[in-house]
Parts: sequence; structure tokens; C-alpha cells
Amino acid sequence: MSASPAKWNTLQTNRAERLARAGASLGGALDGKALPAALLPDLLYAVIERGDRVCLEGNNQKQADFLGQALAQLDPARVNGLHMLQSVLALPQHLDVFERGVADRLDFSFSGPQAARVAKLLAAGKLKIGAIHTYLELFSRYFIDLTPRVCLIAAEAADRHGNLYTGLNTEDTPPIAEATAFKNGIVIVQVNRIMDTLPRVDIPGDWVDFVVQSPRPYYIEPLFTRDPAQISEIQVLMAMMAIKGIYAPYEVERLNHGIGFDTAAIELLLPTYGESLGLKGKIARHWALNPHPALIPAIESGFVESVYSFGSELGMEDYIRARPDVFFTGPDGSMRSNRALCQAAGHYACDMFIGSTLQIDLQGNSSTATQGRIAGFGGAPNMGADARGRRHASPAWLKAGQQAREGRNTIPRGQKLVVQIVETFREHMQPAFVDRLDAWDLAEQAGMALPPVMIYGDDVTHILTEEGIANLLLCRSDEEREQAIRGVAGYTPVGMGRDRRMVENLRDRGIIQRAEDIGVDKRLATRDLLAARNMKDLVRASGGLYNPPKRFRNW
Amino acid sequence: MSASPAKWNTLQTNRAERLARAGASLGGALDGKALPAALLPDLLYAVIERGDRVCLEGNNQKQADFLGQALAQLDPARVNGLHMLQSVLALPQHLDVFERGVADRLDFSFSGPQAARVAKLLAAGKLKIGAIHTYLELFSRYFIDLTPRVCLIAAEAADRHGNLYTGLNTEDTPPIAEATAFKNGIVIVQVNRIMDTLPRVDIPGDWVDFVVQSPRPYYIEPLFTRDPAQISEIQVLMAMMAIKGIYAPYEVERLNHGIGFDTAAIELLLPTYGESLGLKGKIARHWALNPHPALIPAIESGFVESVYSFGSELGMEDYIRARPDVFFTGPDGSMRSNRALCQAAGHYACDMFIGSTLQIDLQGNSSTATQGRIAGFGGAPNMGADARGRRHASPAWLKAGQQAREGRNTIPRGQKLVVQIVETFREHMQPAFVDRLDAWDLAEQAGMALPPVMIYGDDVTHILTEEGIANLLLCRSDEEREQAIRGVAGYTPVGMGRDRRMVENLRDRGIIQRAEDIGVDKRLATRDLLAARNMKDLVRASGGLYNPPKRFRNW
Repeated sequence: MSASPAKWNTLQTNRAERLARAGASLGGALDGKALPAALLPDLLYAVIERGDRVCLEGNNQKQADFLGQALAQLDPARVNGLHMLQSVLALPQHLDVFERGVADRLDFSFSGPQAARVAKLLAAGKLKIGAIHTYLELFSRYFIDLTPRVCLIAAEAADRHGNLYTGLNTEDTPPIAEATAFKNGIVIVQVNRIMDTLPRVDIPGDWVDFVVQSPRPYYIEPLFTRDPAQISEIQVLMAMMAIKGIYAPYEVERLNHGIGFDTAAIELLLPTYGESLGLKGKIARHWALNPHPALIPAIESGFVESVYSFGSELGMEDYIRARPDVFFTGPDGSMRSNRALCQAAGHYACDMFIGSTLQIDLQGNSSTATQGRIAGFGGAPNMGADARGRRHASPAWLKAGQQAREGRNTIPRGQKLVVQIVETFREHMQPAFVDRLDAWDLAEQAGMALPPVMIYGDDVTHILTEEGIANLLLCRSDEEREQAIRGVAGYTPVGMGRDRRMVENLRDRGIIQRAEDIGVDKRLATRDLLAARNMKDLVRASGGLYNPPKRFRNW
Repeated sequence: MSASPAKWNTLQTNRAERLARAGASLGGALDGKALPAALLPDLLYAVIERGDRVCLEGNNQKQADFLGQALAQLDPARVNGLHMLQSVLALPQHLDVFERGVADRLDFSFSGPQAARVAKLLAAGKLKIGAIHTYLELFSRYFIDLTPRVCLIAAEAADRHGNLYTGLNTEDTPPIAEATAFKNGIVIVQVNRIMDTLPRVDIPGDWVDFVVQSPRPYYIEPLFTRDPAQISEIQVLMAMMAIKGIYAPYEVERLNHGIGFDTAAIELLLPTYGESLGLKGKIARHWALNPHPALIPAIESGFVESVYSFGSELGMEDYIRARPDVFFTGPDGSMRSNRALCQAAGHYACDMFIGSTLQIDLQGNSSTATQGRIAGFGGAPNMGADARGRRHASPAWLKAGQQAREGRNTIPRGQKLVVQIVETFREHMQPAFVDRLDAWDLAEQAGMALPPVMIYGDDVTHILTEEGIANLLLCRSDEEREQAIRGVAGYTPVGMGRDRRMVENLRDRGIIQRAEDIGVDKRLATRDLLAARNMKDLVRASGGLYNPPKRFRNW
């Protein structure tokens, strides 16, 4: 190949062409980097080319929905073959781009509410899935082999120079903007308002090409709010077992909680049951967590020392601002989140991940995949995996590692605690324990290289159900592991299939622990133990600072 | 506990007190956020308190050496008990703070050139080590339980508002500044120059409290430059075996190379030997890598499509600027690096890590720790670990996972390729293969909870020496694994201790492969195969754009 200079700057040249087309198309309508909302389609036609990799900021929470809508409405005769990169597909418009033929390829992380439609479009040949990723993995690929050519992102506000204020909901914005801007791509931002002076700058204007004020504020989902009124007494019991049977003996100081009522129950039991056990200052001090409203009582009681967040949560704004010792806040007083760095922190600086799942098999593999729904994983695989690159020690990590290696001829090493907390039966009496994950069928249906497992059995250290705790670290054979799982699987067919003698032996060895084995008094497992029993209690605990979204208010 | 507001903003209040003291101390000498260099000690006395966690930007390459020097010279009667957070300890001043009693506690990642002095200060009771981390792990803790109270960082330039231009050597700066600024800490930056208008903004001024123009540019180390003249023919042979025996069959497209001559040889063989095997466009397309000069010929030949970097490399500035299709560059034309994101990319978006080590034991555990030197790990543990949270597939990852699980009753899963490339004897005829790692002695000496292992044996997939390749993925027992390792350990005592029959059996099964087994012709293993044989060749290959530091020029 010749070394003619032209060959090495095709991206720069192409970027200049796109910007020139945008300039011609928008004429004098630009005010600095800001364009009128009505001209957004013209801008998109000018800067997007067929087959482009386009990253649309669909986060777990905030959505670049105005830009996404405009993209979905483009004429597929003019723009098509787009390869969408998107961490979350949350809105109908996110699938409309495929339905309408504007895009045909997708790499993503999570598609909760749109999971069934993803499967349908896939079956109809309207979209090809590159892969399903965990969040940090997808961001990582933005810098290696999936760099966006154009990104469509969302911020709270911008100034005319393109400086962005993302505030509490910074979420995925920094790595998306960084990868695109520094590979000569085009960065377009929708903002709720354009201001002369921003409360603070989260993304430098040099990284941004165009800003457009959306006619309505970006869509945002209160994904991490759980009404304590819906927590059952079984969940209270499981939370007691978690605190006394896992948090306390392992001295878990740094952790991440999954989403759901099981872990919300734990959060609400820290200042009551946890405090009664003398655990304040000893467990659950440092968190990688969205600002869960259910954590308010634990914060107020002094249990929680710090919380670093992936994103924010609607209604928590004033509370966070009033608790800067706990949360990460900026000079303007509002929170700073950052999903990429918080996922790194969840992976490397936390000793435990605890979360729920839909199905667990006899090897401890768990999955939320069900037939006809391609839902993805979000952050769970990253949090719920042993961080094998970790080298710093903590009591929790050393104890888990020591238990896993006791009696084996292997070099000592620590290990992350990965706990799956599930009731043996979920909604509609579906057993949580199965001989075979639905993920196998889904893999076949969707032509995936591997069944979509959320957390692999060899990363799971404990399974906690209302029947007990199975400590998989202490199992020394596949058979022991299987019986340990059966031994906490209750009246599910998997649980009924247990070898009773072997399960009793595992219990004698402390591999299976029942509530009574760890001194948890089931009679105390009532809702009275919850530090807040409803949304109003949470508001009260916050001193009136928490302001729940309307749908969570019944007063 | 009462909910009096004062209790929740102690960090904010304390920050305001520090800033007030700084204001009083510096008087009218501030120009915006810029202070005269002569007043730096006054600033440090004003804003640093006893026992503070202070993060000093000691990177792999650039050093906040002016700030570090000032810190080391503070009066220990006034400032002491500091807890230093520092990814790299490279300079004598980095230990002087402990020697002089200004600081007494350290959390770090790598201390290459200062490793012996770290051990001495530890033995003398002058410093306590919290832990040794891999880079991303240390950055992660900045957001969880090791948030800096004050950070001392380095940038190329600043404006009076504190906006920073970090340019090519952005390295660790973003997460340090982010963690400190958003937890109400104090951010102090040394810059090479103060400008009215920056080439681009890398860190927003809102995150920065004070900037000081250093009397000399920050110190920077050309850590990744390897003179091809020093590559031996054994290294050429090993590089041929790597390309033909690992890169080609696994179709490794995305990768990271460790530092050293072994991997530099591979880089220099891609456009010659690799091209002759028809591998262009099939292997080594996307890299997470510092801009290694040894990669120039592979870039020029079109082998390399993209390189995303942890930091930069001295002398590569103009070359990078002229190759924006390959490197990540900003609107000003210079590179953007980011160690945190690049480490994430190395962990999650690369299919292979290949690097050297000092010692490997019979289980495949490897370490660079030697007695009397506490050197740390840098990024290797993070790159050289199976990324168990990864969920996207690639041919390399699927094949490695399939080989590891063949014939075992376990759910299919991919696996990262982690290759250790070593000559059986290193300098001074020290065997690279040992019965027992020196890390055990060091752990005892230094009171570490675990021996400091760089890469654990169960993460290593291949060991490559001049004698052959041992594929540990295919081993099915501890004994097979041990014999596979002995079988490539040459004339070291470990190699001589092999069971010859078992090793031959492993070779028959393809677990051990000799050069001839993979069709590598040893007669071709001469330095003629290197695409550049010396520094001048590299300059020539770059079209004169690469400008090596003086110490690498002998013409």
C-alpha cells in the first residue's frame, strides 16, 4: 500500500463533508452550535450516511427520545442500513427504526419492556443482532471495534458553545461522546434547555457538534423505586437471612444491590434488624448503587457512608442535594453519576453483588431469558462475576476465596460474593429452579452462539431462598453443588428431587443453612421490621426531601 | 441520630474552610484559578490537612512531578499522616514523602523503578501498604472507599478558568479529577503552560480548583519504546510461533500486548511473516495499546485498523496526528488517551492478552515479584484475567471457551485468551519456570494477605517458550497441566523434571505444540524477518513522522 497522506484521514475528510452538508442544509439557522428543533430532520439527513453505526442514548433511565423519534421517522429510501448501538431499548421508537427499515442491525445491552418486539423483529428478519452485552462491555467496544460514526445523546442543558450539563443523569453520556468525538464522528445532543451559563459543565463543548432544544424534557424512567407496601413477609424473612447469614459473617462493607423487592427489603431492614444485631459501621458502608429511595432509612440512621451511582432516580433530587457527604455531588449541588465508572466500581471495588433472577438450573446458572423475549442483561453479568483481575484484599473477599479453596491444592486467592436471592416460586407459581433454562430454547430460536446466561453457576457463591442459604463455595463436587441447590429449592420439582440424606449431610457441614441454623427467628419476620412500610414512610424518613413520582403516590 | 442539616455536609463545609484558608494565604495573587509557582507551598499548607487521602498523579508515563516535589518538601511537623493514592510510583520524590514523614500510608498499582525502596521503607516502618491494585481497580476504589480529599494532577495546559488540555497524555487524569471534584475535594493541577484559548478542553474547569504553571514541563517516560536492534532470533522464533500457533487458529482480531521485546517482535513480524501467511485483515485488526513505535510497520502495511490508547508515547506525536483513521484524535489533531476506559476496553473488548513475566510455577501462576522488591502489577491482572462478565461472542473467545469445556458437563461459555510468552531462561540464566514463586517469600516479608500473583494459572490459556506452546485450555487434570508446563520449560530444572512419556502424549494430543508441529520453519527465524531492525528503520517506516527520544538515537 502507498503511504499517500489522503489514505489515513478518511474519517476526518468524511466528517468535514458531513459538516459541510449540515452547514449548507441549515443555512444561517445555527446559533452557535444550536439549531431550531424544526430543522432536526434536515440535520440528520445531512450528517447520517447509509450503513452508519449510530449510537442512540437509550439509557437505563434517561432517553434521547426526541432525537430517537426523529431518527425513526427518517425516510428509509434516503437513510437505511443503520447499525444501532444502544445500551437500552426502552421505548417503542427504539424498535420503529427497524420496523421502518431505517436500521437493520443492533448491538445492545438491555431491552426490558421491548423484549418481545425485539424477538418478533428478529424472527421477521427486520433486524440482526450483533450481540447482547453487559453495559461496560458495550461501552468498551465503542473504543475498539464498534466506534459510533454518529451519536445522538441527551443532556439537561447546553450553552451555545455545546458545553453540556448532564447533572444527576449523566449515566452513559461520557463514554458515548468521548468515543464518537475522538474518532472524528458527529455528536448531536438534545437538551431540555439552552442556557447562557450552565450550573456546571459535565461534557466539554469541544466534544459536541450540534445541540437541539427538545420541545419536551427527555423521557426518564423511575426504574429503581420500589413501594415498601408491596414487600411480603417472605421477603422480610429472606432479608433477615441475608443480613445475618451472609452480610454479617463475611463483613460485607462494599456492595451493589440488584433491582427488585428482595433487595429493597434488605435495604429497609438494615436500620432495624441490622442495627439490632450491632452491625452498623460493620456492614453495607459503601455502595455502588442508583439512589434507591428504599435506602433512605439506612442513610438516615448512619448505616450508609457513601453511595456512588450509575444514574439517578426521579424524586431523589432534593434529598441527594441535602446529603452531599453520602452522594457524589458537583459544585452546583446536584449529583454526578457515570455508568461506565460505576460499573467499573461495581466490578472491582465491591465485595458482593446480590440480586434476583427468574430461573436457576442445577449447576447454579441463572437467566432472565424466557422464550419469545430477548431481554438482555444490563449490568448484572459485570457485577455478578468474579473480578479475577482484582488484587486488593478485604475480609469478605478473603473469606470467600478461602472457603472456595479449602482443602484444594491451589494458590490462595480472594473471590467476590455473588448471591442470587429468589423465592422458590415466582409469579403465577412458576418454579425459580429448573432442570433446563429457557435460555437454551431462546438461543436456538434466535440463532445465538451461546444460551444467554445472566450469571454463570461457577460465579455464584450463594443461593438464598425462603428455605435457606446454599453456600456453593463449600461444595467440592458437581453432585454436592446440585444437591445444595436442590436443598434450598423448596417444593419445586427440583427441590422435591433432592437426595434427603445428602442434603442433611450438607446441612451438617454448614453448606446448607436454614433460618434456625443461623439464629433467625421466623416469628420476627413481619412487615413491622421494615424501616418504612410505604412510600409515605420513605418521604417522612427523608424529612420531606424525597418527592416520589405521581404514580407512586396514593395520598 | 438527629437529622440536623450540618451533619450531612461536613465535606462541603470542610472544603469551604480549605478554600477560605487558601484565599487568605494566597491573597490577591490568584489570576482566575492560576497561582504563581512560588506560592505552591502556601497553597498546599492551606488546603491539605493531616491524615488526608491525597492522590498524586503518578501515571505510567506523565508525572505531576512539580506538585509531587512540593509535597515531599512540606514540613512534616505541619503536614503528616497523609495517605497517598497513586497508580505509579516512578520517581524518588514519590518515596521521599514517606522517608520524610509527610505521608505514612500508600495504596498503589505499580512501582517499577522504586520497588526496592518501597520494600525498604516498609521494612523500616516508614510506610504501610493498604493494597497493591491493578489500575482500573484502584480508580474504581476512588469512587467507593478510597475517594481522594485532595488530588495533585498534571495537564499540558490550562486556561484561567481551570479548563484543562491533557492532549495525548490524558492517561489517569479524568477519573482522579472526577472522583475528587464530585466528593467536594480539592483539585490542584500543574500545567506546562497557561493559555488564553486551549487547543481543546479535556477536563472542564468546573472540576478544577487551582492551576499552577510548572517551571519545567511535567516529567514523562517513554515506557513503550523498544529498539528493534535488541530483538534476538529466539524472540523472532517465538513471535512466529505466536502468530502461526495462536493468532491464526484463534482468529484473534482484538487484542492487547504487554510491554517488552517478546511482543515487540510479534508487532514487527505482522507485516512480514503475518502477511506471508495471508493473515492481513484476519488477525490483529483492533488494539487496546499505547502507541508502540514497533507497531508502525504493521500500521503502514494496513494490518492495523484501530488503536485505542491508555496513554501516549514520546516521539509518536506527529505520526499519530498523521494517522487519525487509526488513532483516537481530537479536533485539534492530537491524540486522546484514557487509561480507565482503555483498561475497560482491554478487559471486555479484547479477545487476547499476551505478555511476559518473570516466574511461572507448576500451576501456571505467574509473578513479577522478587524478594526485596515490591513492584506491583500495573494493568496486567486486568488484561490477563478471563472477563467473566463478558457476553458478546467472537470466534477467538468461542473457540477458547469450547476447548476449555470439551467433554465436560458444563454450560457453554466463551473465554479470553491469556498468553504468557517467556524464554525458559531470563537474564543471568535465571529460570523462568520455578517450583515456587518468589511471591510467597515476599508475601511473608511484607505481611501481605496473599502472595502477589500477577496472573493466576487458571486464567492463563497458553504458555509459549522457545520450546513450544502449551495449551492449558485442553488440560483435563492438575497433573496434565503440570506436565504441559514442564513440557515447554526447556532445560530449566522444572523442564528437566518432566515425565517424558506424558509430555509426548500431550504432544500427540496437540496440548503441547513444537515449532515443527505448527509448520514454523526455524531456519526462517532470523532478524531479517523483522519489518524494522533498528530505530532508524522505524523512523523510515513512519515516513519521518516518528521522532524517537534522544536516548534511542545513535545516529
